[in-house]
Amino acid sequence: MFVSFEGIDGCGKSTQIDLFTKYLESNGINYVKVREPGGTKLGERIRQLLVSEEMISRSELLLFLASRAQLVEEVIKPALKEGKVVVADRFAHSSVAYQGCGRNLGMDVVKMLNDFATNGIYPDLVFYIDIPVELAMLRISKEHRDRIEREGVEFFERVRSCYQQLCRSEESFVLIDGTKDKQSISGEIIRIFEKHYKI
Amino acid sequence: MFVSFEGIDGCGKSTQIDLFTKYLESNGINYVKVREPGGTKLGERIRQLLVSEEMISRSELLLFLASRAQLVEEVIKPALKEGKVVVADRFAHSSVAYQGCGRNLGMDVVKMLNDFATNGIYPDLVFYIDIPVELAMLRISKEHRDRIEREGVEFFERVRSCYQQLCRSEESFVLIDGTKDKQSISGEIIRIFEKHYKI
Repeated sequence: MFVSFEGIDGCGKSTQIDLFTKYLESNGINYVKVREPGGTKLGERIRQLLVSEEMISRSELLLFLASRAQLVEEVIKPALKEGKVVVADRFAHSSVAYQGCGRNLGMDVVKMLNDFATNGIYPDLVFYIDIPVELAMLRISKEHRDRIEREGVEFFERVRSCYQQLCRSEESFVLIDGTKDKQSISGEIIRIFEKHYKI
Repeated sequence: MFVSFEGIDGCGKSTQIDLFTKYLESNGINYVKVREPGGTKLGERIRQLLVSEEMISRSELLLFLASRAQLVEEVIKPALKEGKVVVADRFAHSSVAYQGCGRNLGMDVVKMLNDFATNGIYPDLVFYIDIPVELAMLRISKEHRDRIEREGVEFFERVRSCYQQLCRSEESFVLIDGTKDKQSISGEIIRIFEKHYKI
């Protein structure tokens, strides 16, 4: 089973992924955790480019896709084949939201490019953690923001509204209210996971 | 005017580009020379990844495209706007031949991805220097081959036959017989260029 966590920066994804993987561990469920961009030797080198170099939006998207293609082939496909749960900190839908809407490249073209990069491999379940942009901005410290995190409020508003649109159109999406306390969010995520996961 | 040089490794492209740019200089024609992958700060860093890291074909193609998108926006478009001749050592058609046919990703999908990366900017004139694969193999020294140059004869046969196919389907393509001596090849390239270039 393939599960991804999505949301704008500062939504609490990392905390929830930690709680979710602790749950998997304590239940003896084998899993592999991956992050995007990165997760492979090539992907981590691409990540360095993405956080440090100035670039146009189309190049940014293509670099994310290059990292994703390698991750699918090298890590995700083999893990799924072995029956492991794959837990992804961001995946293809981040590109739809961030580059498609945030950068205004268009959702459809990004979806088409994702199809090529992922070779049709998509999560069975996407936990989208929704929070207001103002709250997210308060949570991510100004000093340590990377190139993308330094974008303004309008950028993140476009990203958020794209995620909300995906919630309505994509069957795999589950909207999680990220303003609740972290334990009740985690409980909700685990309940939904257990409904879908067959041991 | 935008001119690119294409062909399999060892076809004599670099020599011909040198002779061509010397001709442009001695005729006082302003030009910008670019190479792929590379030609920008981001592109040169992507080039390092491409020659050194192991990766799947789809990632390889996406990295070439990321470098290309940046090159078009940062260098090619501004140069064309200033009325300069752009001389490219490889461009979009290399991906069609190398990744589309060499790596068997398919010509059509690569063409579509090129359209996205280049934003529709293509050379007015493509000098494709054709030589038999055996001759090319003799010319590139075994010790200094990069990751792609280490591919076998069959790979380069697919690349060559793709280029020959593009010669038949693309109006901008000119087939140059690369087995002739370098001065007569250069003379032919310059004659064709002069027919197209309006001062």
